[in-house]
This record gives sequence, structure tokens and C-alpha cells, in this order.
Amino acid sequence: MLKVPNHQVAGHKAGDGKLGPLVDDSGRFYKPLQGNERGSNELNFYTSFSLNTRIPDHIRRFFPNFYGTQLVEASDGSGLQPHLVLQDLNFRRVNPSIMDIKIGSRTWAPQASEDYIQRCLKKDRETSSLPLGFRLSGFQIYQNRELGFWKPERTSFQSLPADEVKLLLRKFVSSNAYVNLDSKPDCSFASIVYGGSTGILSQLLELKAWFEDQTFYHFYSCSVLIMYEKEFASNGKSPCAEIKLIDFAHVYEGQGVIDHNFLGGLCSLIKFISEILTTPDGCTTEASSKEIQKNQIYFENGTT
Amino acid sequence: MLKVPNHQVAGHKAGDGKLGPLVDDSGRFYKPLQGNERGSNELNFYTSFSLNTRIPDHIRRFFPNFYGTQLVEASDGSGLQPHLVLQDLNFRRVNPSIMDIKIGSRTWAPQASEDYIQRCLKKDRETSSLPLGFRLSGFQIYQNRELGFWKPERTSFQSLPADEVKLLLRKFVSSNAYVNLDSKPDCSFASIVYGGSTGILSQLLELKAWFEDQTFYHFYSCSVLIMYEKEFASNGKSPCAEIKLIDFAHVYEGQGVIDHNFLGGLCSLIKFISEILTTPDGCTTEASSKEIQKNQIYFENGTT
Repeated sequence: MLKVPNHQVAGHKAGDGKLGPLVDDSGRFYKPLQGNERGSNELNFYTSFSLNTRIPDHIRRFFPNFYGTQLVEASDGSGLQPHLVLQDLNFRRVNPSIMDIKIGSRTWAPQASEDYIQRCLKKDRETSSLPLGFRLSGFQIYQNRELGFWKPERTSFQSLPADEVKLLLRKFVSSNAYVNLDSKPDCSFASIVYGGSTGILSQLLELKAWFEDQTFYHFYSCSVLIMYEKEFASNGKSPCAEIKLIDFAHVYEGQGVIDHNFLGGLCSLIKFISEILTTPDGCTTEASSKEIQKNQIYFENGTT
Repeated sequence: MLKVPNHQVAGHKAGDGKLGPLVDDSGRFYKPLQGNERGSNELNFYTSFSLNTRIPDHIRRFFPNFYGTQLVEASDGSGLQPHLVLQDLNFRRVNPSIMDIKIGSRTWAPQASEDYIQRCLKKDRETSSLPLGFRLSGFQIYQNRELGFWKPERTSFQSLPADEVKLLLRKFVSSNAYVNLDSKPDCSFASIVYGGSTGILSQLLELKAWFEDQTFYHFYSCSVLIMYEKEFASNGKSPCAEIKLIDFAHVYEGQGVIDHNFLGGLCSLIKFISEILTTPDGCTTEASSKEIQKNQIYFENGTT
């Protein structure tokens, strides 16, 4: 029995007769194979990646398991359709707080079509991608049993400036029951979710080290998912903090060059998260604003 | 007495009545202050940078010393004109081999004018910048006393694919007397120029560590110069290998974000140079081609 996933924060969604991914009750995620090149590209990537014996295990764990393709009843009622069969990343999760962060200031490959490039470039310039090197593509923050999740519309956060993104990354690891755009985060869970030897920062740094070296693949328009269980953290249990990479419809061969676009964006995200750990009391935003002002005194930039 | 510099490999050149930089015999370099915003931007950067007390000394040494501005007789005969007074990076160098490498897959800032962005984007896509994250912008390789320097036209190398750029980076540190596009590099000096605790790679890694953290400046269209003395290396002396950053007409404030564009390109260059050190016998190019072919067997990319 396939059903609509509970915790999807970005991408096409099933339901209301639309085509989207489904999950079963054994931990598998069924993603419709798009008929165009995106579908075949993503299948090619999963196939290549699963056969690539030079991916170390500590990196492979950041990718969803791949179980091949299967014909299943599509969510839009169009009958049996081919789906990628992947690991359901939220299987056995209870109330996961999730961020979907699209990495890279550029979401298009040099060899993509002109039309696609122009559309992506426009969006990269309109959102946080170009200035920050990544953009928030979706998220949900668990509040408590009464309030459930805070899950705002994508348009409200994908173009935020640096300071606002920093604030959201702080809210993500705060104990506040009621969260919204105006709430003041306490960053209670920063040290156990972002920090520590198995925390998010540590995982991102492992991924970074691999990206400094690997020339197999270039990942355009790919996301890092950051997940944890706020209730577990509140109860003194392990918050099950983990990162996963998803969305490989625009992965290309590396051709002997590292993925400098993904790596740059990843390093930017790492810097944002590191700052929260070094100043967990929330003074980062104000402090960095002061630094910027101080610097502006003797550095006024024109445009060219 | 000001004169035209001997070892300029890129940028506007003085001579034949044209406007370009000059040097004196005390180690100073006079760069005409362009009347447009580029000139004031570069002056603003040098002023800000020289006053910024939070730049560590081991990073400051990678930048030319700045001595203010001065009215000097311009090289185009237009009389006294304002010039930036900088350190002459080739003062006391004898026969330096030099590479000028423009870092970043994107040479334009998000806040630049639309016209400028379109011109840069076109050039980034036509050259190595977009695929590699950097492009060769100029170079000269010393051959020997009889042959002097090999200094090809810029158009012949700024759009080279990865394998050809790797080959050039090998030629740069080879003992071969006669160098051209077809010569086979022996990489004799790789270990003492690129390698070692004070070599080029080590310097690039120091710079990288700073770029992972600094949010003061974003450097667009800025170059890393790589310099050394081939004759010294041949004679068993220190090759005086060093890197310097130059060209700051398109530096902008970081506004609390790292320069992910420069950092990504820098990491790509670092990977190119690391590969030469791990396989100095020249087998890299073939080896990586084989890897690519092997990968292609099960990963054929379409376009989107």
C-alpha cells in the first residue's frame, strides 16, 4: 500500500490527483521517473553512483539507498508508471524538523540548454543562491504537539538576505514552542544538533573534504537535507541529526575537475552553521552587522 | 625615472604611447587610476585592506604593499595623472616564470550593472572559467638564455579544457629548454616549486583557509600570480616560489558571507596542482582520462 509522504518539504507533491512521490510501509520511497531527460539523468546518476566502487562508505551514507526502478500505480491516477525506488529518508522518524537547502550559487551546468540556463540564472539571481551560494528550498520546524509544524510558503524564504537566513538556521535548533518569522530563537539545541562529533557540522565537513577531491560528478540543483528530532532533543535523547543529499536530475560528469560550484556553496553553509556554534547566544547577527558597518566606514563600493 | 615593466603578463600595457603601469628602480609599481568606478573601487579596496587590522600577517603577505596614490607622468604622454603606488612584484626578480590565473567561475558581482554582467557571463562561458572555476589570463615560461621566454597569445590558452590546463601547469615547472604547446613536460621542478612547506601549494592552502572564514571582501575578476625563478631551480638554489593576489577593481564587501565563488575556484586550482605532485611523472592526464572513460561506461549524460 503506497501513500503520500508525511514530511516532504520541497519538490512536486502527490495528492489531489497530482503526480508526486509515494512511500510504502517498509521504508521505500517511490519517485516518479520524469519522462524527459531529467528522469533518465537521475536514474543514470543513481546507477553510476551505486556501481562506483571508489565512493567511500562514510560518503555513501549521505546518499539515499537506491533499489532500482519499478512500475507502480502513479499518484495522479495515470496507472502503472516507472518510479525510482529509493530509501525513505523519513522512515521511522517521528516529528522531524527538516531543511532542504539547494547548494551552489549556480544551479545550471555549462552544457545545459540555453533556455534552461536562462531560467535558472534568473532564479539564482532572484533568490539567495547568487549572494549566499545556497538557497533554502523548503523546511518544516516542529513546534510541539498542539501547534505541529511551522512550514511557511517557499516564496517567503528562498530570497532571504544573509542575516535572515542566519536567524532561520538558529530557529531551526531552538526550543521555542511557537516559531514564526518574528520569534527570537534561543538556540538551545545548537550544540547537540549542529555541534558534536556526530552533529550536522561534522557531517558537512566530511562531505566538504570529499568535494575537495572528487572529480566524478558535478551536482547542479542538488539539495542537502538537514534533519533532526526536536522532541528527542527536548527529552535529553539523541536528536538523530543527519544530512542527506537529494535530487540528482542535474548531475553531470566531473571530467577531471572538482565541483567548485557545489563546494563553494557548501563552504558558505558551513560558515553560517559554524558561526551559530561559536556564538550560540544569538549575538552573531548583531555582531556581524557591527563588523559590516565598521568596514563600511572606509570601504564604500560603487557598481561597475 | 619610470619605465615599462619587464614582466607584465596580463592587463593593459604601457608602451607605444598607450596607458599602462610603470615601475621605478626602487621597487614601486605605478598603476594608472582608471577614471571610472574601477579605479576608485581598486583604491577603496587598497585603502580598506591596509587599514583592516583583522587581516593576519601571513595573509597580508599575499597582497602587494600599498603606498597610496601619486601624480606621475602617464605612459601615454597625457601628462601628470593619478596612479596607485604599489609594490613591484618583480623587483629584483631575474627571469621569472609567471602565471596570472583569474580565480572564480564567475567574474561578476551580483550588484554589478546588467551590461557588465552580460559581458562577463559571456566571457566566463567562452573560457575555462565556467568549467574549471578559473582561467589562465597570462603567463610566461622562461626557457633559457638563448630562447628567453615562451609567452603565447592569450587567446591561445584562456579557453583550454582541463587536460590542456593540467599540461600547461606541468610545463610551468619543467626543465625543458624549449617549451611550446606540443612539448612534453618533465616536471623536474614540481616538487620544489609546487611542493614543500613553503611552496606554491602550501601558500595556496593558507590562502584557502582564510577564504573559508573571511567575510570582509568578495574578490571578482581577481588573479593569483604564481612566480618562480627557473634558473635558480636549475642551479639547486631556492626557486623563490610565491603567490600574490592582484587586480582589485571588482572587489565588493562580503556582507557576512564568505567569497564562495573565489573559494570554489581556488579549491579547483589547488586540486590541479595537488595532482601534479601526487603523479609528477606525467601520468595524471592519461590516468584521469581513463577514469573518465571508465565512468562514462555507465554514466552517459544527456542535456537538459
